[in-house]
Amino acid sequence: MSEFQTISRTAHDELVTAAYRSRGYSMEEAMLGTKLAAEAARHGIRTHHALKALHLDHLFGSEVGGCVPGAEIEVLPSRFPASEVWNANKKLGQAVAYQAIDRAIELADQYGIAQISVDNSFHYLWGGGYVMDAAERGYFAYTNCTSTLAEVVPFGGKFPTLGTNPHSWGIPSQGANGFPIVMDWATSTVAMGRVQALKREGKQLPAGAAVDKNGQPTIDPNEVSALLPFGGHKGYGMSLLNEIFGGLIGGSLPTIRGRRCGDAEEKTTTAFYFHVIHPDALSGNNFAKGRSQSENLKAVLDDILGHGNENAMLPGQIEAKARKASDDAGGLLFTPAEIAEFNELASELGLPALESK
Amino acid sequence: MSEFQTISRTAHDELVTAAYRSRGYSMEEAMLGTKLAAEAARHGIRTHHALKALHLDHLFGSEVGGCVPGAEIEVLPSRFPASEVWNANKKLGQAVAYQAIDRAIELADQYGIAQISVDNSFHYLWGGGYVMDAAERGYFAYTNCTSTLAEVVPFGGKFPTLGTNPHSWGIPSQGANGFPIVMDWATSTVAMGRVQALKREGKQLPAGAAVDKNGQPTIDPNEVSALLPFGGHKGYGMSLLNEIFGGLIGGSLPTIRGRRCGDAEEKTTTAFYFHVIHPDALSGNNFAKGRSQSENLKAVLDDILGHGNENAMLPGQIEAKARKASDDAGGLLFTPAEIAEFNELASELGLPALESK
Repeated sequence: MSEFQTISRTAHDELVTAAYRSRGYSMEEAMLGTKLAAEAARHGIRTHHALKALHLDHLFGSEVGGCVPGAEIEVLPSRFPASEVWNANKKLGQAVAYQAIDRAIELADQYGIAQISVDNSFHYLWGGGYVMDAAERGYFAYTNCTSTLAEVVPFGGKFPTLGTNPHSWGIPSQGANGFPIVMDWATSTVAMGRVQALKREGKQLPAGAAVDKNGQPTIDPNEVSALLPFGGHKGYGMSLLNEIFGGLIGGSLPTIRGRRCGDAEEKTTTAFYFHVIHPDALSGNNFAKGRSQSENLKAVLDDILGHGNENAMLPGQIEAKARKASDDAGGLLFTPAEIAEFNELASELGLPALESK
Repeated sequence: MSEFQTISRTAHDELVTAAYRSRGYSMEEAMLGTKLAAEAARHGIRTHHALKALHLDHLFGSEVGGCVPGAEIEVLPSRFPASEVWNANKKLGQAVAYQAIDRAIELADQYGIAQISVDNSFHYLWGGGYVMDAAERGYFAYTNCTSTLAEVVPFGGKFPTLGTNPHSWGIPSQGANGFPIVMDWATSTVAMGRVQALKREGKQLPAGAAVDKNGQPTIDPNEVSALLPFGGHKGYGMSLLNEIFGGLIGGSLPTIRGRRCGDAEEKTTTAFYFHVIHPDALSGNNFAKGRSQSENLKAVLDDILGHGNENAMLPGQIEAKARKASDDAGGLLFTPAEIAEFNELASELGLPALESK
């Protein structure tokens, strides 16, 4: 980790909150946007920390009307007590998502399972952060969203019409294995950012990850025109699932989402889907050898990772290790180039430079 | 389809029901086991038709105590109105699963989303059949289960400790695209049955599908000792998810599931998880251009399959085509070898041979 320097979470949070505030976001939006960015950095999610979040907000968000600072969430009328549908009115996705998790937990306490669907939001960046938050509070959570850009080719097709559409699950397994199991991944084989990185390094892509402008498979990052779903038809189905949820909630055509050109009568916003499960609502209360639910989950996980499988990991293990490194360092870890960028931001906002160690 | 002959559904159903009855199953169990087998055959699911179901029941089920004919489902006490947990007492999985879908639909009508967890069941064969049933009735349904045998190696490991653990989603999209979208697949790259078939044909496996007895990747079907998850760590996570649900519900160690050797105090039964969503509970009622929810889903799907992607398919399309072929033929399609096996069964049961055309 010697390439990294540590900045204090307080200093990070003050700067990032000020940046959101300077763009017109409410204090609550700024704080929740900052929380997600800090948790991403803390868990080593380098693609979704504050610099990335603020950059995306600049490209697609508050700068261009894709996101509306201070927007109010409308809870739409529903006849279903364990379900809510929200019109986010283009509110910052991080603020919407943390609130959706809070509300879904309240409803799951009552009904065992609950869902929140969100129409008209701006994207929420790191789905893993919200389900991890729920898992740390003892709940099983799931979310998916429609990605901003259509970069992925359907299995058997040749033109990108699907987002990288991620899925995220958080499992309150910390009592069994020491950290919440968190699965959080895009349904493309690799991200477009990875293609750019390989291009810079002069390296090849793995097979089956991308196609060229004619829809033919390529491993040359210079030829890449679009991405392929992971795992063939199975990953394609998982990507499609987000578009299906989006289409049922109120999202519109994936090929024009996030764009300002195209049919002005179509919607270009993002849809989110969340559900939260109370683990007591799953339990048959009859675990072998008198084990508790958590002890039983531990026995199952130990069996899976035993038998010579000590090199296998649980999803979320890398994030848990990064978190420990951050917490041991007493702050958030960034590269010198990232810290320089933070300090440029501080200077623009008239704030003091960050101290790093 | 010239390799296939048609037998009438009535004749098929009478024979299969009689076979279940002869093994001690109740009329309801026999009819629901027959229904799933007939629907599998009708939709071209050749791995889960009646001959396979009866064979698995013989190997792991009623013959050896893995499944208990006439077992009663106990609905366990729960404080959560949108959630039920059932102890299936080793009841035939098909009977449990159809009833779980029925009950989850009733609860989803009331709460918008509902879940049924099932402990202590015998496996249900084709998860796609149950979610398709729900989708045809207008509901979004999902199920997963723990597979009987541990045949799959965790990503990064070398010994098989995971089942082929399938996931199934059914989407009531018939109004948009003509048939319910149904995704139903195992989390292994290929099934063990496919390895056997390639061995017989002297062919190689795709890369990344299996390992040899030392945990090393192999494409030689003769060397295969265990399977690998599809899509690397992503498919591994999806397989793990079924074990996590199983572990939270009441299932036990995957490596001894379905086996009669091993620690007698551990449970060896299968766990199921179902949830059903009422599509109205997802809708924000604000679709572009005044479209209905179904029209909006159609617009999204048309966008995905447009732009030169006419060769891409929707999940469930192959099954819908097989169904049409069956219905056009006026019955269920089987190979001459399968029909001979059905007639052997008929002869054992003292029933007349099936007429085929």
